[in-house]
Amino acid sequence: MSLTNATPLDVARAARSGSRKLAILPTEARNAALTAIHSALSEAKDQILTANALDLEAANKAAKSGKLSQSLVKRLDLGKKGKYEDMLQGILDVRELDDPIGVVNKRTLLDDGLILERKTSPIGVLLIIFEARPEVIANIASLAIKSGNAAILKGGKESTESFKAISSVISKALESTSVPHDCLQLVQTHDVIGELLKLDQYIDLVIPRGGNRLVRTVKDSTAIPVLGHADGLCCIYLRDDCPVEMAVRVIVDAKTSYSAACNAVETLLVDENALKTVLPTVAEALLAKGVSLRCDSASKTALSAVLDKHSAVQLQDATEADFATEFLDLILAIKTIPNSATPEDAVDAAISHINDHSSHHTDAILTLSEPLASRFQDGVDSSSVYWNTSTRMADGQRYGFGTEVGISTNKIHSRGPVGLEGLTIYRWLIRGQGQVSTDYGAGGKKWKHESLQVGDSERVAVTDEELELLREFRARKAGAMNGVGK
Amino acid sequence: MSLTNATPLDVARAARSGSRKLAILPTEARNAALTAIHSALSEAKDQILTANALDLEAANKAAKSGKLSQSLVKRLDLGKKGKYEDMLQGILDVRELDDPIGVVNKRTLLDDGLILERKTSPIGVLLIIFEARPEVIANIASLAIKSGNAAILKGGKESTESFKAISSVISKALESTSVPHDCLQLVQTHDVIGELLKLDQYIDLVIPRGGNRLVRTVKDSTAIPVLGHADGLCCIYLRDDCPVEMAVRVIVDAKTSYSAACNAVETLLVDENALKTVLPTVAEALLAKGVSLRCDSASKTALSAVLDKHSAVQLQDATEADFATEFLDLILAIKTIPNSATPEDAVDAAISHINDHSSHHTDAILTLSEPLASRFQDGVDSSSVYWNTSTRMADGQRYGFGTEVGISTNKIHSRGPVGLEGLTIYRWLIRGQGQVSTDYGAGGKKWKHESLQVGDSERVAVTDEELELLREFRARKAGAMNGVGK
Repeated sequence: MSLTNATPLDVARAARSGSRKLAILPTEARNAALTAIHSALSEAKDQILTANALDLEAANKAAKSGKLSQSLVKRLDLGKKGKYEDMLQGILDVRELDDPIGVVNKRTLLDDGLILERKTSPIGVLLIIFEARPEVIANIASLAIKSGNAAILKGGKESTESFKAISSVISKALESTSVPHDCLQLVQTHDVIGELLKLDQYIDLVIPRGGNRLVRTVKDSTAIPVLGHADGLCCIYLRDDCPVEMAVRVIVDAKTSYSAACNAVETLLVDENALKTVLPTVAEALLAKGVSLRCDSASKTALSAVLDKHSAVQLQDATEADFATEFLDLILAIKTIPNSATPEDAVDAAISHINDHSSHHTDAILTLSEPLASRFQDGVDSSSVYWNTSTRMADGQRYGFGTEVGISTNKIHSRGPVGLEGLTIYRWLIRGQGQVSTDYGAGGKKWKHESLQVGDSERVAVTDEELELLREFRARKAGAMNGVGK
Repeated sequence: MSLTNATPLDVARAARSGSRKLAILPTEARNAALTAIHSALSEAKDQILTANALDLEAANKAAKSGKLSQSLVKRLDLGKKGKYEDMLQGILDVRELDDPIGVVNKRTLLDDGLILERKTSPIGVLLIIFEARPEVIANIASLAIKSGNAAILKGGKESTESFKAISSVISKALESTSVPHDCLQLVQTHDVIGELLKLDQYIDLVIPRGGNRLVRTVKDSTAIPVLGHADGLCCIYLRDDCPVEMAVRVIVDAKTSYSAACNAVETLLVDENALKTVLPTVAEALLAKGVSLRCDSASKTALSAVLDKHSAVQLQDATEADFATEFLDLILAIKTIPNSATPEDAVDAAISHINDHSSHHTDAILTLSEPLASRFQDGVDSSSVYWNTSTRMADGQRYGFGTEVGISTNKIHSRGPVGLEGLTIYRWLIRGQGQVSTDYGAGGKKWKHESLQVGDSERVAVTDEELELLREFRARKAGAMNGVGK
């Protein structure tokens, strides 16, 4: 990793050249680099938190004078309980994942002696721009190295000190490894970004990690594909058959466990029938946690009638704009889904609201009805759609990716939490024996297009009879009845 | 399909709304629409070829006065032998493919009663802009419908008559199906494109099918992701151990079978050792086919010495620009790869030239050496990399995709020939029982992250011993020795 004063063109060219060397490094060499980064960051924890404290101090000052939002300050804090350890564990988790590169995931016999394979490969050069969240640099570095991609990193000015400290530790750690120096490039001045965004011949993917404004600005000023990690306007749809205890647990988690997160819920849709049954306990629990409730008139009327006086006066009136707002704060907009002729109609109304208002990030339904949940999960066009769990589940670590480069609200390439797989692509390889295109087609040879097995070479398709045979064989061998392990 | 005078905003909104209905139509309904389109286009062949003849006539006139390239005229011709039938067959091939939508391709047990699934879904709304090639409209319509995507289509002015004829046939055919009318929208005036490219809230993907200039213009003027179907600067690297007959067959096919195609070879890299052994016969065959050879000095000197006088005088001198040019015509640039200390060094020099000069579309090596071919296939960063076959193999139909929307030289989402799979994405679904994020992590429950099987439920992993058992069982059953079918 280099802290550089080079021109944007030099940076991009060097990253491109480094990426080609990194792309053909063996798995072990890339894993060894992750081990080195992990050890170095573990040892340097105090030093990094000291640097982070400087950023926090400045941010708090800016927040007090209204120049910075409180949610941004929260994102900046590396000392938050478990955050540093999560960052470290993320590096090891990524190291332990299967190598995503060089995997043949499709194989077709085009004709005798003519085999087509699809083999995974790195994308090339990534440009990652992030605002706060200094831990992102460790996530990105490990994901980039593991997936064989070079990365150019640009941090936000609010996290400058944390960023410098972490990157200098990573930089030193990499010196002892075979990952080329140019594969992680660090740029610090903001004015180079505009130039970098023009270099689509050297940079393959931009990942802006920050608010909608950053993503919008980047998208509008580059021809490089953008993996949009936008904030999330997430919705939960509460059905009247949802047990009160589950509703409280899920909604309180979704709103309050980390309200500055993009996967926090912002709008609660409530069945008219649930306004006086399930909603009141949910509302009380939220108010007790300091959440402001912005209610439409039906929900406000219903809640006012059943809540105690102290709680009722805290209810606010929602405006239309509230249902299109990501609060990223302890605020929840509540909207009523009116009773309809059928429950399906009500679900469709919720789906419609979500498809029109949500940011296609993560939305959930709370209900005991499997058919209605299914209808909801089929109809909502968001990257993650849940049944009976919190929108806060949308996260690479929780999905088992080790860590994530962000949560994509794009409609192509990668949706939802993006881990290693989102940083890979593939190449099509053919091995032939001199066959040519004019051999085939009208009047010529026919294509075989036979799908061949990839990987898992010991996996065989068996009939029911053969499965029984295997069961008996294994039972005999084990001296006891066992199922066929899959 | 509608020929419309609506505003771009109306068009995009209607497509978005139609796409949501199309996305949840069952497989059979989408297949029935393809059957209807196929029948209608079969019946209307004469009518469509008559319209195409009008376009061809105008194009030929423009070509004669130098306003249009001959290669564009070739692309326009629907009457070219087998082209109309290929178009029709492509629709049926697409219909017969497995439904790409609604497939669970990843399933993870996050925790007991908490299951994560990744399920394929349509992208949403596609905007496809194409220059010539009127058959593209049928390809796109069938791929879009099969993959559950709405499509807005804009044809080039050169193919206006063909385009109008085909779209009116498709439009009528769809009336009898359940595919919503708004899912295929046709725009004819060029001035709406600029407006459509601004509507990234309604349009999810732009696919420009045409030359580099079109792709460049689109990329520079939209925040919508662009699936770049650029032309191809394809290279073949000829090693000295390649049998002459194979070299001739492959290179002649790659250059002459359809020189206006993006997968035609434009640069031939030749080992110094092959200049006087393999190259002369290749050069004679190419010259006999009317190909102009633009040679670097080493290859020109070598060829001049061995070719007959008539052939030798036809050799031209290559400039540096020739190695960065897509001729799309019967022209081939020839460059010598000098002898090196090791064959690996020579292969690396070829890889280097290709990574710097090719358009990352399709490149090939001709050699009998497996290790050198492997090195080449690992090192070349192109969407398709071949060993001993023609670059013309890069094609959706040849790859077994039925048909294609184009060949992507992008580094994300989809690379190489793009068929159905490139038009799909996925959503992450979780089924839970009220679990919340704060249940897990430091001090809480541990994630299980257990990979569950998807599909192929009869496939079981077996040991070598069990494999032997199955073999014997099958042999006994068949009354003869058979291999274990996979």
